[in-house]
Amino acid sequence: MSSTEAGGLFGLLTSAATDTAAESATGDAALLRALVAAETALARAQGAPREAVEAIAAAGARLDVREMALRARAGGNPVIPLAEALRGAVGAPSARYVHRGATSQDILDTALMLVAARTRRLILADLERTATALARLAAEHRDTVMPGRTLTQHAVPTTFGLKAAGWRSLVLDARDRLAAVRLPAQLGGAAGTLAALGGAAALAHAAAYARELGLTEPVLPWHTLRTPVADLGCALAFACSALGKTAVDVLTLSRTEVAEVAEGSGGASSAMPHKANPVHATLVAAAARQAPAHLSVLLCAVPAEDERPAGAWHAEWTPLRELLRLAGGSAEHTAQLASGLRIFPDRMARNLSLTGGLIVSERFATELGKQEVGKLIDRAAAADAPFAEVAEAAGFGDLLPPERWSGAAGALVDRALERT
Amino acid sequence: MSSTEAGGLFGLLTSAATDTAAESATGDAALLRALVAAETALARAQGAPREAVEAIAAAGARLDVREMALRARAGGNPVIPLAEALRGAVGAPSARYVHRGATSQDILDTALMLVAARTRRLILADLERTATALARLAAEHRDTVMPGRTLTQHAVPTTFGLKAAGWRSLVLDARDRLAAVRLPAQLGGAAGTLAALGGAAALAHAAAYARELGLTEPVLPWHTLRTPVADLGCALAFACSALGKTAVDVLTLSRTEVAEVAEGSGGASSAMPHKANPVHATLVAAAARQAPAHLSVLLCAVPAEDERPAGAWHAEWTPLRELLRLAGGSAEHTAQLASGLRIFPDRMARNLSLTGGLIVSERFATELGKQEVGKLIDRAAAADAPFAEVAEAAGFGDLLPPERWSGAAGALVDRALERT
Amino acid sequence: MSSTEAGGLFGLLTSAATDTAAESATGDAALLRALVAAETALARAQGAPREAVEAIAAAGARLDVREMALRARAGGNPVIPLAEALRGAVGAPSARYVHRGATSQDILDTALMLVAARTRRLILADLERTATALARLAAEHRDTVMPGRTLTQHAVPTTFGLKAAGWRSLVLDARDRLAAVRLPAQLGGAAGTLAALGGAAALAHAAAYARELGLTEPVLPWHTLRTPVADLGCALAFACSALGKTAVDVLTLSRTEVAEVAEGSGGASSAMPHKANPVHATLVAAAARQAPAHLSVLLCAVPAEDERPAGAWHAEWTPLRELLRLAGGSAEHTAQLASGLRIFPDRMARNLSLTGGLIVSERFATELGKQEVGKLIDRAAAADAPFAEVAEAAGFGDLLPPERWSGAAGALVDRALERT
Amino acid sequence: MSSTEAGGLFGLLTSAATDTAAESATGDAALLRALVAAETALARAQGAPREAVEAIAAAGARLDVREMALRARAGGNPVIPLAEALRGAVGAPSARYVHRGATSQDILDTALMLVAARTRRLILADLERTATALARLAAEHRDTVMPGRTLTQHAVPTTFGLKAAGWRSLVLDARDRLAAVRLPAQLGGAAGTLAALGGAAALAHAAAYARELGLTEPVLPWHTLRTPVADLGCALAFACSALGKTAVDVLTLSRTEVAEVAEGSGGASSAMPHKANPVHATLVAAAARQAPAHLSVLLCAVPAEDERPAGAWHAEWTPLRELLRLAGGSAEHTAQLASGLRIFPDRMARNLSLTGGLIVSERFATELGKQEVGKLIDRAAAADAPFAEVAEAAGFGDLLPPERWSGAAGALVDRALERT
Repeated sequence: MSSTEAGGLFGLLTSAATDTAAESATGDAALLRALVAAETALARAQGAPREAVEAIAAAGARLDVREMALRARAGGNPVIPLAEALRGAVGAPSARYVHRGATSQDILDTALMLVAARTRRLILADLERTATALARLAAEHRDTVMPGRTLTQHAVPTTFGLKAAGWRSLVLDARDRLAAVRLPAQLGGAAGTLAALGGAAALAHAAAYARELGLTEPVLPWHTLRTPVADLGCALAFACSALGKTAVDVLTLSRTEVAEVAEGSGGASSAMPHKANPVHATLVAAAARQAPAHLSVLLCAVPAEDERPAGAWHAEWTPLRELLRLAGGSAEHTAQLASGLRIFPDRMARNLSLTGGLIVSERFATELGKQEVGKLIDRAAAADAPFAEVAEAAGFGDLLPPERWSGAAGALVDRALERT
Repeated sequence: MSSTEAGGLFGLLTSAATDTAAESATGDAALLRALVAAETALARAQGAPREAVEAIAAAGARLDVREMALRARAGGNPVIPLAEALRGAVGAPSARYVHRGATSQDILDTALMLVAARTRRLILADLERTATALARLAAEHRDTVMPGRTLTQHAVPTTFGLKAAGWRSLVLDARDRLAAVRLPAQLGGAAGTLAALGGAAALAHAAAYARELGLTEPVLPWHTLRTPVADLGCALAFACSALGKTAVDVLTLSRTEVAEVAEGSGGASSAMPHKANPVHATLVAAAARQAPAHLSVLLCAVPAEDERPAGAWHAEWTPLRELLRLAGGSAEHTAQLASGLRIFPDRMARNLSLTGGLIVSERFATELGKQEVGKLIDRAAAADAPFAEVAEAAGFGDLLPPERWSGAAGALVDRALERT
Repeated sequence: MSSTEAGGLFGLLTSAATDTAAESATGDAALLRALVAAETALARAQGAPREAVEAIAAAGARLDVREMALRARAGGNPVIPLAEALRGAVGAPSARYVHRGATSQDILDTALMLVAARTRRLILADLERTATALARLAAEHRDTVMPGRTLTQHAVPTTFGLKAAGWRSLVLDARDRLAAVRLPAQLGGAAGTLAALGGAAALAHAAAYARELGLTEPVLPWHTLRTPVADLGCALAFACSALGKTAVDVLTLSRTEVAEVAEGSGGASSAMPHKANPVHATLVAAAARQAPAHLSVLLCAVPAEDERPAGAWHAEWTPLRELLRLAGGSAEHTAQLASGLRIFPDRMARNLSLTGGLIVSERFATELGKQEVGKLIDRAAAADAPFAEVAEAAGFGDLLPPERWSGAAGALVDRALERT
Repeated sequence: MSSTEAGGLFGLLTSAATDTAAESATGDAALLRALVAAETALARAQGAPREAVEAIAAAGARLDVREMALRARAGGNPVIPLAEALRGAVGAPSARYVHRGATSQDILDTALMLVAARTRRLILADLERTATALARLAAEHRDTVMPGRTLTQHAVPTTFGLKAAGWRSLVLDARDRLAAVRLPAQLGGAAGTLAALGGAAALAHAAAYARELGLTEPVLPWHTLRTPVADLGCALAFACSALGKTAVDVLTLSRTEVAEVAEGSGGASSAMPHKANPVHATLVAAAARQAPAHLSVLLCAVPAEDERPAGAWHAEWTPLRELLRLAGGSAEHTAQLASGLRIFPDRMARNLSLTGGLIVSERFATELGKQEVGKLIDRAAAADAPFAEVAEAAGFGDLLPPERWSGAAGALVDRALERT
């Protein structure tokens, strides 16, 4: 086994990202393609002859990711061996157009933005799928009453429609924030002055480079102005958190004792033949526990000293990639979860009766006053009878049906579903 | 000493926030005023008689913050004793309009948004002051050449103008992100259905409530849809990080050996009479180290189960307030730092010569090729002479002046200053 | 209202720490006392005359915490105004013994260790109370069978005794780790060389200083060797996390649908008269969500440059104090929770039957093979009958009782309770 | 390219861990070996026939890591397909001894502890190498005077020996904490009761299993009692932080303007032929920025509900492995850094004069009083002369030599080096 393979990570420790499209889009093979795309665009933007540009692209396509990884290790940076390999492969005179005027950070930052752009498309598509599935659930269960729970206790009735509409609103929030992030190309040269990029023409070259790559042209090189990384990190971490809300609710509602929802197909257990675990929700919840920590590393790296920092930039790479993987995996799993989720209105109805009518005690307090409802509760306790029975006997039976104390839930669902 | 005072925090452990306007705007006294404002708006939005509304406001204004804190401790929540105190103070019949139809979270979330709105105004004003001061520095030093540094080593020349323009661009990024955050009112009742808020009229009441308070009206109650908190947290943490970039650069450039900038007035030392410490930059750097951790708590609280979670919501309060304080303190200190910063162009010029001309080795490599410059470097090493001397002797003296290898720095400054 | 009060925090935003002994032990008044104790010990350790020592202590006792906070704000550090105030109060000739040879960090680090020592005693006592209460529960319910749950689903039976024994083992782990932390005095002078502390006698003075204060004498001044802060932070954050395990289990088992345990006295609700919220568990869970973030700030501050860093040290103060408050609050609340926790074995028994016997499917699989149990499950599904019924009919009734498939739970409880 | 490879990580994004022994020790291939070791020990501990044990080990050795990763993706857990693969490979009757009585978490937790044990040996060896190199530096430079710096400014003299002794003390602290962590085997069965592990014999089997693997036998199964993970996480994160102190000092002292130390061989630059970057220190500093975030995820996962949580456990895997990689990489890089570090005492001496004698102003204040030294400073300012000149003229020349104001630095070095 080669030393590269010995330390390689192939997904054996399964996580939210494993076996998702986002995993492929962010792997070392995808990153190598993005690095080559940046070098190729750099040559083209500076007016390299067509043969040189094509030679660079072709040489890049032939590179082996494992070998490049091995060579990357010496320099603390994958771009130095990449440029060497490309120069060697294309030979003179094309070699002089390879990596011309650029610094390693130009190529690596740009490649990470390309990887981010590609992965973002996947995530946004899965968020749309999720929102569509949740909109259907919200509409279908607009009036399906279930217990509203606060601090683990039954509080007052709500509807599953309102819950699904709430989940969807978070998904749309995540989509809007992620879609709004600007992903710029990076080109500044050794210290961000573009000095080796052709003097007066440098700004034009930088603009052409961004255009070639389909990335935004930044006002300034951002070697140590890390707004793009912070913005992307915030949007990705928020996406994981937002999807995590659906996950924790599904986990709660799936409990054996609650059983109001179930994932379409549960995961197997190695020891208990009967179990059907909420696997999607578990992986999404696990991702939501990790993403904020990665973001904290990215934000701590914004105060990056000088024109390139000693450590802050290097600390960004793994957390940024990991955030793309976690958000991508979460979005894919939540899309599957939302599409397959099974809802059990009968069980919701049964659970509504668990407090013997107390779930509408707020209604009694509102209509009769707190003192009056306190007396009814005391009377029920004294008689060891359900509150509903005592209330019924006292002539307040029409205050009891939970579906008549779901407030504006229906109107809220309608309003929330207007958002597209 | 009363038990309240015994554990109180008055700012003895000084931090970025101490003695700033943001500290006052976020203290317990300010929070109490905001809680009362929310209760007053709630009554008015539901059409309470004018006397009742005025009685609530007047009673709220008379409350003592220390006593309320003492009473808040029992319920795990300051709103329960507040509502009791207000009811007691206004007496019947106004008492029935106090806290009507609301849940504690409605009032506390709204009050925190009011506190955030007030503090945001302070922060935005300080960010503007900072941006103005930095624009002046960038324009004034558009062509002041200094060493560009990467991984702690002199790399190629840059300008102080470009550095200041970069700092400013981060400050404007922070301003834009913070200004864009929507701060909504919260009103949902016990489980977010508005059930006790008057049925059909509930949505209108919620709209009026938000309007009264000058806050945004949300599409849905957001008891467990925490986008507003996450957005605010991201913007505040980013502001601390963005200001931290100026701080770490000022710290680096202030070092005794570098001495290219100095804070307007340094802090005293208890032991060394000659020292002038970069106190503003130190406090801003310290804030930037803390803010991302607070944000991670907020984002981990987004996956909040049920209609009100048991722990996730409660975990938000301190980090959110602390982020407001840190961002407010950072902004105020950076505004002072930027206004008073002293720049030493002579020292920058002297430092540019520290590598004996190697700071423009990139120019030699660009114009003569890497091999040629390698030979010159070797020759200088062999002769134990500065590179500049050997290069001069070899007829390349015109490649040496650092100010001729600052690339597009000037044009970049101009472009960056167009942004307002 | 004075400017100090305007920004003061009195505990209005209730948290785990509010109204606990740890809150008083860590407030600004307690910190001021510790600062004075450090200054007093410094004078005594250097052989100051008894009158000088007494004058310093007496002057310190008269200081007003609010006024000192106000004066602390100018210097970015509370020690500079403290030394001035003490010098002014004691007058010549005692003044020359005030703060002699020390740097601000010596006094502040030492004071924080004193505060930590005092708070630790409180925490350890509450952890002992908790462990005792849990030992009683574990012994009492050694054989009380309940559903074991994995990934939210009933898995196989366990016992409440084993659960309580597990909680206790975490509490004891927290106790052992916290008790083992060494809390050293700090005395190094301006840059940690003890230069102004009397030459040859300096090491003896440092030893006497630590002895006076009841703190450990460190091998080296630890201005930028932050092991003590990291160790303390790890132990406190772990304590919060460890107590959090009990809290999340209590929250889960308290759910209206599960109802296997309940807090002794639940918290009131502002809207729903019937509710009894698990307030202790909620506050402990909220603390566990915050503590790890504070620790991350402390650990990021360990790489502190130079002999005193510009920012890293300053970033420690708030998180360290907050960790003491959170751990102290958590310990006090968990002690109350554990003492008052009500256990409902009948409900556990009822819940055990919710899967119709499938909770012992592992036993069937172990004794009959997975294929055989699969057939029984299929047969039950086909007949729409509980698994238990089909299994009984097939002659396997003796495999069904959950209490016969609790494995080594009892033996494990016994073993765990041997630990003291 | 197979889908496994597409998302694989081979080290292209270089980090502290890349190309280190810790990388190999924690890769998926190493993890697979550990999983097989756990399954093999499980069979042996339960008295499986020798042929069965050998068949399991042999079958495990033949498994392909890429194929296993691919199969792991379905179940959200690598153990389910592993057990299937082993059963299939060994055939009846050995198959019945595969994974007998265990749950997936038993095998995975145990494998991670095995991986941790192996990686810890590597880390401890590198920490010892580092400590040895630093001891040599401390002894050699016991009396090499250099500027002590606080808040970026020259404060008073210190020695490089004291600095190196301080670095070493942190390395030894890291070593002691890591060496003290207990790494237990995990064996509890489906819900931690050992029910399917043979009744009365279960505890004996669990003991044998731990013994086989060279791991500690825990008092209780720790499926949701995560002290071992928290302890390991704290020790690893602290190691990264402790090594980070050396890194940030080396980065500071390597600055072009300071130049008091240099890494043995700097890293190349892709754009500037003359640069020699402090690559080891940069990677170690980058690791120290990431480790605390991973620890925060681990500590947030300690409050794991039930007998196996839905998300908290799954969230541990990546951060725990990443901590092992970061600590391993940091230790290896710091060992190289410490062995090769070049010290420039001449430069230290030159830098000591940069403040014109003010670096010993504390000595003047101590011996003459603050007022007197203030007058001298004022006089120097008025004359635009160095303080040293004015002091010399005033007859205080003997107070000026920095080497006479290094306090107890030498004695502290001696004391610190006594520790082994």
